[in-house]
Amino acid sequence: MKKSKVLIVGSMAFDNIKTHKSSVKNVLGGSASYSSIAASFFSKPKVIAVVGEDFTKKHIKPFHDCGVDTSCIEVKEGKTFTWAASYDKDFKNATTLSTELNVFADFAPVVKKEDEAPQALFLANISPKLQLDVLKQVKKPRLVACDTMNLWIQNNKPQLVKLLKSMDIIFVNEAEARQLTGVYNLIKAGKTILKMGPKIVVIKLGPNGALLLTKDAMFQVPPFLVEDPIDTTGAGDTFGGGFVGYLASVNNWNNLKHIKKALAYGTVLASFAIESFSVKKLAQVKPEDLKKRFELYAKACSF
Amino acid sequence: MKKSKVLIVGSMAFDNIKTHKSSVKNVLGGSASYSSIAASFFSKPKVIAVVGEDFTKKHIKPFHDCGVDTSCIEVKEGKTFTWAASYDKDFKNATTLSTELNVFADFAPVVKKEDEAPQALFLANISPKLQLDVLKQVKKPRLVACDTMNLWIQNNKPQLVKLLKSMDIIFVNEAEARQLTGVYNLIKAGKTILKMGPKIVVIKLGPNGALLLTKDAMFQVPPFLVEDPIDTTGAGDTFGGGFVGYLASVNNWNNLKHIKKALAYGTVLASFAIESFSVKKLAQVKPEDLKKRFELYAKACSF
Repeated sequence: MKKSKVLIVGSMAFDNIKTHKSSVKNVLGGSASYSSIAASFFSKPKVIAVVGEDFTKKHIKPFHDCGVDTSCIEVKEGKTFTWAASYDKDFKNATTLSTELNVFADFAPVVKKEDEAPQALFLANISPKLQLDVLKQVKKPRLVACDTMNLWIQNNKPQLVKLLKSMDIIFVNEAEARQLTGVYNLIKAGKTILKMGPKIVVIKLGPNGALLLTKDAMFQVPPFLVEDPIDTTGAGDTFGGGFVGYLASVNNWNNLKHIKKALAYGTVLASFAIESFSVKKLAQVKPEDLKKRFELYAKACSF
Repeated sequence: MKKSKVLIVGSMAFDNIKTHKSSVKNVLGGSASYSSIAASFFSKPKVIAVVGEDFTKKHIKPFHDCGVDTSCIEVKEGKTFTWAASYDKDFKNATTLSTELNVFADFAPVVKKEDEAPQALFLANISPKLQLDVLKQVKKPRLVACDTMNLWIQNNKPQLVKLLKSMDIIFVNEAEARQLTGVYNLIKAGKTILKMGPKIVVIKLGPNGALLLTKDAMFQVPPFLVEDPIDTTGAGDTFGGGFVGYLASVNNWNNLKHIKKALAYGTVLASFAIESFSVKKLAQVKPEDLKKRFELYAKACSF
């Protein structure tokens, strides 16, 4: 079977992460990294991103292991975007210790001629201005999704609102949904976001799963339980990438049966992502591991 | 079919509730009220409780409508326990405005000779001292469950710990699970409580459903989504009563299939409870309403 091509634009980073149990330095991170590897389980992702000269073969290996097309990752003079953060016990809060944008500061994603017509486009978490730039460069794909964050809602809301008019799917977390709408009640916040354009609003609930709204339906799904997360960085990007990657692989993505399956696959992939630092565990997941965990999840949710 | 007899001991109260939208005075409340009406959908509940002379036919009607045996509700000289609380917008927090114990202050539950061998016993939220007193008065039923609250964990922990050794099931909310164990991680907190005695620990997650742990399994279930709750008072008692009432009605309650169904029924009944003040909506639910919502819930959770 020929896999659908999913174009993913986002950040690639080196993460320095400190948890209550241990810490790592300069591990692969970034929204494009987690989401493209997650999408690779169902589709053929191609990543548009920028890295510095310090980005080595070691860093590119997980992408190649997963069949992610890295030919549009631009290597620029300078250092790779670096993010340092520490989590408190049980991953209640992440505190950003430092953000060095480096080559990411001037990221200007370019879509090559041959990539102008992807089946799906996932605008992972980068500035809405860049997300709009990319959108302009492609012929409207069958499926367009975006992620965002508090920083953009605060500083670039007009661009984000403009972007949302063209989106099929938006991913936000609880705080972002409330920040974007000024509405605390998550169902009402989700409905308010639906009115801004997207056909599907997915509110990621962290350890409590996810809430999904369309014009006609809403679902909340539980998490796949992980007793001892190692590092929750990238869980949301993984969820989004898995969700979009799965929907890109089906003929009629705007079908509730598929949408629910996408929710389940996103959830299950996120559970792998938090079982290691970086994409280590996620990139090693085999199709049979995914199938097994999906079945466990579906069984746990059946009454 | 002869329904199983479930003995329920708890509080009966008049509630004065203020929400951001409206307020009510002297409506029927209390842990025994919500839980017995919820249990009545599956079993034959008999309530042991105390009320004052101000408790009228109007207040007893919902119980009779639902087939709850009220013959052990003691009417004592004085006023019924009265609780006043206000909720902030979206039911994030409840603030207790006043608690007038009245006749409840000297509640000394007595189990009559004819009730000494119920199929199930639900020790709804009252002091662990009283819960232990009741436990002593019955022959060990097939199924014994209890609820509790922050006040008892703080002031009566030794009695609560003693009680737990004899419990099949305990219901706690997130904060109570953490307070009881000193453990933030809910899965670990649940496992810690399992070690204290109960075969099943149910951690109620409010708008995020519930987490259940046994020695061999754990599940998290989503809520039945209600966009506009009217009043969330009693949701947990309803959940517990429905859960216990359902399990009391099956032959082999210690079977995961039944335990999951109990979770689903408790969740669905709680969704009715929050759609009105007091037990108004809950007491009017017809078996076909419950069946319909259960099926919707099961469908939403199937992948």
